[in-house]
Amino acid sequence: MHGRLLVSCPDRPGIVAAVAGFLHGHGANITSSAQHSGERFLMRMEFDADGPLDGFEAVAEEFGMEFSFADASVAKRMAILVSREEHCLLDLLWRRRSGELHCEIPLVISNHEDARADVEAFGVEFVHVPNGRDVREAAEEAMLDRLGGIDFVVLARYMQILTGGFLARVGAPVMNIHHSFLPAFAGAAPYERARERGVKIIGATAHYVTEELDAGPIIEQDVARVSHGEDVRALQRIGRDIERTVLARAVRWHLEDRILLDGTRTVVF
Amino acid sequence: MHGRLLVSCPDRPGIVAAVAGFLHGHGANITSSAQHSGERFLMRMEFDADGPLDGFEAVAEEFGMEFSFADASVAKRMAILVSREEHCLLDLLWRRRSGELHCEIPLVISNHEDARADVEAFGVEFVHVPNGRDVREAAEEAMLDRLGGIDFVVLARYMQILTGGFLARVGAPVMNIHHSFLPAFAGAAPYERARERGVKIIGATAHYVTEELDAGPIIEQDVARVSHGEDVRALQRIGRDIERTVLARAVRWHLEDRILLDGTRTVVF
Amino acid sequence: MHGRLLVSCPDRPGIVAAVAGFLHGHGANITSSAQHSGERFLMRMEFDADGPLDGFEAVAEEFGMEFSFADASVAKRMAILVSREEHCLLDLLWRRRSGELHCEIPLVISNHEDARADVEAFGVEFVHVPNGRDVREAAEEAMLDRLGGIDFVVLARYMQILTGGFLARVGAPVMNIHHSFLPAFAGAAPYERARERGVKIIGATAHYVTEELDAGPIIEQDVARVSHGEDVRALQRIGRDIERTVLARAVRWHLEDRILLDGTRTVVF
Amino acid sequence: MHGRLLVSCPDRPGIVAAVAGFLHGHGANITSSAQHSGERFLMRMEFDADGPLDGFEAVAEEFGMEFSFADASVAKRMAILVSREEHCLLDLLWRRRSGELHCEIPLVISNHEDARADVEAFGVEFVHVPNGRDVREAAEEAMLDRLGGIDFVVLARYMQILTGGFLARVGAPVMNIHHSFLPAFAGAAPYERARERGVKIIGATAHYVTEELDAGPIIEQDVARVSHGEDVRALQRIGRDIERTVLARAVRWHLEDRILLDGTRTVVF
Repeated sequence: MHGRLLVSCPDRPGIVAAVAGFLHGHGANITSSAQHSGERFLMRMEFDADGPLDGFEAVAEEFGMEFSFADASVAKRMAILVSREEHCLLDLLWRRRSGELHCEIPLVISNHEDARADVEAFGVEFVHVPNGRDVREAAEEAMLDRLGGIDFVVLARYMQILTGGFLARVGAPVMNIHHSFLPAFAGAAPYERARERGVKIIGATAHYVTEELDAGPIIEQDVARVSHGEDVRALQRIGRDIERTVLARAVRWHLEDRILLDGTRTVVF
Repeated sequence: MHGRLLVSCPDRPGIVAAVAGFLHGHGANITSSAQHSGERFLMRMEFDADGPLDGFEAVAEEFGMEFSFADASVAKRMAILVSREEHCLLDLLWRRRSGELHCEIPLVISNHEDARADVEAFGVEFVHVPNGRDVREAAEEAMLDRLGGIDFVVLARYMQILTGGFLARVGAPVMNIHHSFLPAFAGAAPYERARERGVKIIGATAHYVTEELDAGPIIEQDVARVSHGEDVRALQRIGRDIERTVLARAVRWHLEDRILLDGTRTVVF
Repeated sequence: MHGRLLVSCPDRPGIVAAVAGFLHGHGANITSSAQHSGERFLMRMEFDADGPLDGFEAVAEEFGMEFSFADASVAKRMAILVSREEHCLLDLLWRRRSGELHCEIPLVISNHEDARADVEAFGVEFVHVPNGRDVREAAEEAMLDRLGGIDFVVLARYMQILTGGFLARVGAPVMNIHHSFLPAFAGAAPYERARERGVKIIGATAHYVTEELDAGPIIEQDVARVSHGEDVRALQRIGRDIERTVLARAVRWHLEDRILLDGTRTVVF
Repeated sequence: MHGRLLVSCPDRPGIVAAVAGFLHGHGANITSSAQHSGERFLMRMEFDADGPLDGFEAVAEEFGMEFSFADASVAKRMAILVSREEHCLLDLLWRRRSGELHCEIPLVISNHEDARADVEAFGVEFVHVPNGRDVREAAEEAMLDRLGGIDFVVLARYMQILTGGFLARVGAPVMNIHHSFLPAFAGAAPYERARERGVKIIGATAHYVTEELDAGPIIEQDVARVSHGEDVRALQRIGRDIERTVLARAVRWHLEDRILLDGTRTVVF
């Protein structure tokens, strides 16, 4: 199998040697490695192995490691939440279909019916769960009912708040695409506010969702140049291209186990 | 002469025809034109003319125009204020010397002595005016004494506040380079805060200075990609290259009379 | 109506005044104007007009102008030719559906059957015309039969040569997306050759098609950074995002009558 | 000491484990590691070590490695060759002085006298060696006489050919900045040819010099967007900013031992 090992532990000498030694001792060939010393020591290795890799717990214990092994051939199960804007959703579905994203997409949930036909044309189940300030609790219960067995949730322009309770119970990382260059223009109507402020560059940000709005760890950002000639509609049009490519990159990195957390920051290997 | 005409007025039909007709009627050949309808109608025309262009006041009155004519061959007199970071200062001096920026630089003012030798090597007068919270008033008086006859003031990493009183009395536009992608990280220590927040792109912003810190009309911005591997010192190093090129572009546009104000936003023709 | 006027003529004084005067005299309000003096004088004006704009021939004759008026509300009829790679095709169909591209797409022609279901799902006619070295003539006849009444042909990764005869008879501009940063890697297998050469940036180019392969006037280009870690498949994946956005921008500019020819170069207003 | 180890060898299992084990066994703590499997297996590790790292030859022999250790505290001795364009030269001198580039610059050689005063103001020796088709041999002899003890030669817009004989004898890697986006516009007058072709993006390329003109391994490239409005002088102005930043990045990577060769391509760790 082709495997991936992620390690997070306090920094001290000998970690690379111990992990590389373990893998080699179990017949695994390391094909890629990256490491970073931040608040903690973080490391990612890819390797080819024939047999099982039993016994890593001893290494982990010695160094106080959190770790996870992943089999690259196993597709993660990814659910997509979306509201009315369809560009990020369609883009993810296309990329999945073309083989660019290695995952299953068993489910799309929306608080609107608009995207049903498009989603079902990809052979993906579409579930309509109305959401809003007055039905938040019921909506989140209904979504949690459907998200069992999901490894990863992507908010592809989902314009509803998710409560801390939902995030605690969903049991999977949740990624969002925000249509601004965070920390600028967090919250509502970023293109309108970008136009109002007269910025010369707009952007989009993919981040993991935490309870605090648009404040989770940033995974990826990108920008495009704009001018005084572009009104809000033009910013939205230009922004859509940034949003979908930024989100697609962040999703791919997550699916490939490239993203680790170093405190409130991401490390992307 | 090669001239530039800037016009700002309420939008209504017939402006382009009237202005183009006036210029043609006075023997001027329009070599470039640009217009924008925002809060007001803004227009910039470049032209070649042999003789005087008397009588535009009549056109201006008809349309309620503010306007200005500039002779492209006349170099603006630009003063530079700087603190300890020298990269923007040296870059502007070098671009002026190489002919890239068409201006005179009669004066550099700094609240530190560090840059004296470099500035004087370019044949430019260097004036040391200590500044800080306790001597603000005296410092600004001293600077105002030296800035008579100056057309344009550039803050090339000048790390002191300029009061509203100074701005009102200096009698010339003041441009600043801020070392972040505004409106993100306005104020102090932007690279430290960018690192803390874990952004994946950093930037710089050239803007006209108003009384509110880092809130004046944005002229130009640019960005560079960074990763988890870059610490604050690396962000500063990468940022310096963005700062100097962003500032140089904005300064050139100002010297070429390309920047108009549309409310609190700039239009760059 | 909202109209667009494109003008191309030898450069001499008085053109702007004459055209602006004509439009104003016919009750039209100029909302946008741009001009460029290259091998010829080129100008584009947008305007709002209530009635007909008869009599421009006299102005045109005086200055030796080629000119064209376009009504912005009239959608151009755009045909798409495609082979197996679907990303540019789907992107154009989606942008048309979402209202981002103002055009009709009556027809998609492909030398493969692969894209039929996707195209028909957008309500667009799909025509399969096998093409290749041995059937070139018949293929081009068959395509010409279907392309009557078409205003604009887009090659959205169409991997067959179009002969000079076809181009002469099709009666509409033909735009191509080439998957390299021209003039680098013109011709076949650009990503393979980019990988072989070890470039650090790849790109894509939208251009008008002429008889000489990949040598027509360039309309738009963009690039992405790559590293030693990216193999040919990764370059193709990264490149697809550039191709579709570059093509979409060039198509939109064409549909908005923003592109003029200055000899063998384009001017994009 | 803070050290760097570069390794190049045929790919096979166990390399990472062997090297990491060696370093750990000699009390060295690995602070950074990167690897790439191309035509050969390439690896770079940074480490902190207290004592000597004797005995790596045994590891190297087992795996057929080429390797080199570098002490990060030792500044490389870098010579700069330049003709008339001074922007890359001045930029490198500034960056060295500001501490951004960790190297010594004992010597600048030019085939023109123009830059003497600027170079000497930095306290660097300036040597004038006329060069040209007719005096090539004498010029190269004179330069070789001065380049003894030099670790690294940078052509900062040096517009003369260096012969294969010179390259063979200079005994140090030679890096060049070419003012185009290679492989486009290799050879003379790239900005003129870029303008002629009507490209929408221009660029610059830093590469190691080989006998074949502008065909050596590419280290770094970058680009800037241009429009029909920019003439050749404007391309040169815009290009200068790209040239100096691309060259500075490539120089820094070389000084930090980040660049390995994988056949005719570079790997930049």
